Amino acid sequence: MSLAPGSAVGIIGGGQLGRMLAMAALRLGLRVHVYAPPEADNVAFAAAHHAVEGAYDDRLALKRFAAGVDVLTYEFENVPPTVFDGIATPVRPSPLALATAQDRLPEKAFLAACGLATARYAAIHSVDELDRVREAIPKGFLKTRRLGYDGKGQVRVDGAMASRDALDTIGNAPAIFEEAIPFTDETSVVLVRTEAGDLASYAPSRNEHEGGILRRTSFPGPLNPEFEAVARRWTANVAEALSYVGVLAVEYFVTEDPERPLIANEMAPRVHNTGHWTMDGALTSQFENHIRAICGWPLGSTSRTAEVTMVNLLGEEASDVAGHLHNRLARAHIYGKRTARPGRKMGHVNFLTRTVDFDTDRW
Amino acid sequence: MSLAPGSAVGIIGGGQLGRMLAMAALRLGLRVHVYAPPEADNVAFAAAHHAVEGAYDDRLALKRFAAGVDVLTYEFENVPPTVFDGIATPVRPSPLALATAQDRLPEKAFLAACGLATARYAAIHSVDELDRVREAIPKGFLKTRRLGYDGKGQVRVDGAMASRDALDTIGNAPAIFEEAIPFTDETSVVLVRTEAGDLASYAPSRNEHEGGILRRTSFPGPLNPEFEAVARRWTANVAEALSYVGVLAVEYFVTEDPERPLIANEMAPRVHNTGHWTMDGALTSQFENHIRAICGWPLGSTSRTAEVTMVNLLGEEASDVAGHLHNRLARAHIYGKRTARPGRKMGHVNFLTRTVDFDTDRW
Repeated sequence: MSLAPGSAVGIIGGGQLGRMLAMAALRLGLRVHVYAPPEADNVAFAAAHHAVEGAYDDRLALKRFAAGVDVLTYEFENVPPTVFDGIATPVRPSPLALATAQDRLPEKAFLAACGLATARYAAIHSVDELDRVREAIPKGFLKTRRLGYDGKGQVRVDGAMASRDALDTIGNAPAIFEEAIPFTDETSVVLVRTEAGDLASYAPSRNEHEGGILRRTSFPGPLNPEFEAVARRWTANVAEALSYVGVLAVEYFVTEDPERPLIANEMAPRVHNTGHWTMDGALTSQFENHIRAICGWPLGSTSRTAEVTMVNLLGEEASDVAGHLHNRLARAHIYGKRTARPGRKMGHVNFLTRTVDFDTDRW
Repeated sequence: MSLAPGSAVGIIGGGQLGRMLAMAALRLGLRVHVYAPPEADNVAFAAAHHAVEGAYDDRLALKRFAAGVDVLTYEFENVPPTVFDGIATPVRPSPLALATAQDRLPEKAFLAACGLATARYAAIHSVDELDRVREAIPKGFLKTRRLGYDGKGQVRVDGAMASRDALDTIGNAPAIFEEAIPFTDETSVVLVRTEAGDLASYAPSRNEHEGGILRRTSFPGPLNPEFEAVARRWTANVAEALSYVGVLAVEYFVTEDPERPLIANEMAPRVHNTGHWTMDGALTSQFENHIRAICGWPLGSTSRTAEVTMVNLLGEEASDVAGHLHNRLARAHIYGKRTARPGRKMGHVNFLTRTVDFDTDRW
């Protein structure tokens, strides 16, 4: 499948990822339709030819939306995959990727099945079960299996905390207990795959989180060439196992444990915050490559073109736009959200240092 | 004046320049309103929060539109400047720049008054007058004073053509006769100025036209450092004389005449096709710098970051989008127009070669 010029791309989700996908699609002359639940800050709507408000589980509305576009994609992994049942429009990445990624339990099992090292984990259904698991894994995180993001829906559990309290903290939702990994660094591979199996991936950045929220990605990344090749290969395994079409991100911990130097943390079946640097530091952004892949168009080069540090603007940090623009090597991306809740991602800045020669493409 | 985040920018004109301005404004978190006459291909509407159809001379509609935005700008120099009378919203660049640029006669006089060398010219009101002028200037172009673009509204006049026929060809509109310049190269300076008088300009490219339509811009440009400094200075003179705010372009002929090596051809009070390479080959695009300037925000660096050749896609040339994307160093910009008339600008491709180190900013 290769879409004709001026075809319509349907994006499910109205946040900043949908917005940046929409802008990439517009730049390529595509028509953009966006579907999102009613919300004050559906910032993707501004970059769309057609915007529809509807619930993620409103099958009828979604079916009508799908009928108006040539391909469907999503910015958000918590869309119920069953809503795509009976929809003839191609959904890319496939609902299988959604189903795999949105429940931490099958996600972990799937990553392990693809050959990726993961933290030890166990499903938790009761206080007793958590007590037993903690005997084997004394330090870990109790996480809801579904709907967690940016550190939400999880609690760190060690000797001091009663299992009862831990489960109460996450609302006694279906849960998974994951071993706490004493990592030295975090990184990720943002990869794109076409239907025909073409693969390209971006250089793995150094990712720093604060309070569970990504604060900064920078280069050089933490991986030596050997581990970088492993991380790219592992991520490709995941994409291939899912017959994935579009951008996929897998986050990794880097440890000093010689037995497990690289541990997959989680996957995201979508464009990813750790790939925002590609908007100004790579020849083709992750957003454009996602759009190209889902349209059946050739991928663009993922070569890095600049040294770049991406910094998220959280809460009120985006309110002084002009201030961020004073640095002449800063590229600001402001999402246009009206409500600046603390910790909310309001924009990001790519700070460029020197450009680098185009490196050779990977894959 | 420095606009608050989330302020609304009003763009008059719905074509590709308005669309690329709109996308630059969106990226900075601004709200975008677009006003344009009803037309099938108002491609800027897709990147706007709010789109209004109305005639350029509908003062009431334009006044209502202006009341909803914090600053007004335009993508099109043929808006009647008087429609802004009585509008309190700042108009940037000012209506004075519009008035100067949209009539070739005062435009030429103004450029000369700013110290720029121009072709010899004369106003033409009759066949007799044209006959007389042709005695002094045997080879030239008869052009309508207003509403010409992309080689439209003009005819080359030399010994073989009767003055009567020449005037008939341009519909006997108010006209100017301009000496034909035997140029070796064409170039342009795309410059941006803030209200406070800060200036930045982009490297002057080599511009090639075919049939009056820009086909290609490339680097290195045709000017040696001495003439490049002259061209930048002349363009700055024009901006300063108009207290100009935003992006201004002046096109130049390069000749082998030692008396007049550089001759100003025309000015455009807006972002310019010869600046489209900046979207992928400069740290800040002309579109973003225009938006920054009109918002009272600091200018971004105009440093070139790559060797780049811009090629316009005319008529049917944009219909094979995927084909253009096969070159991994090509950056395609497709405007989303439905009707591909011959010669119509449907998109452009920036072909990157190697990146270059950031050069030092100019001004």
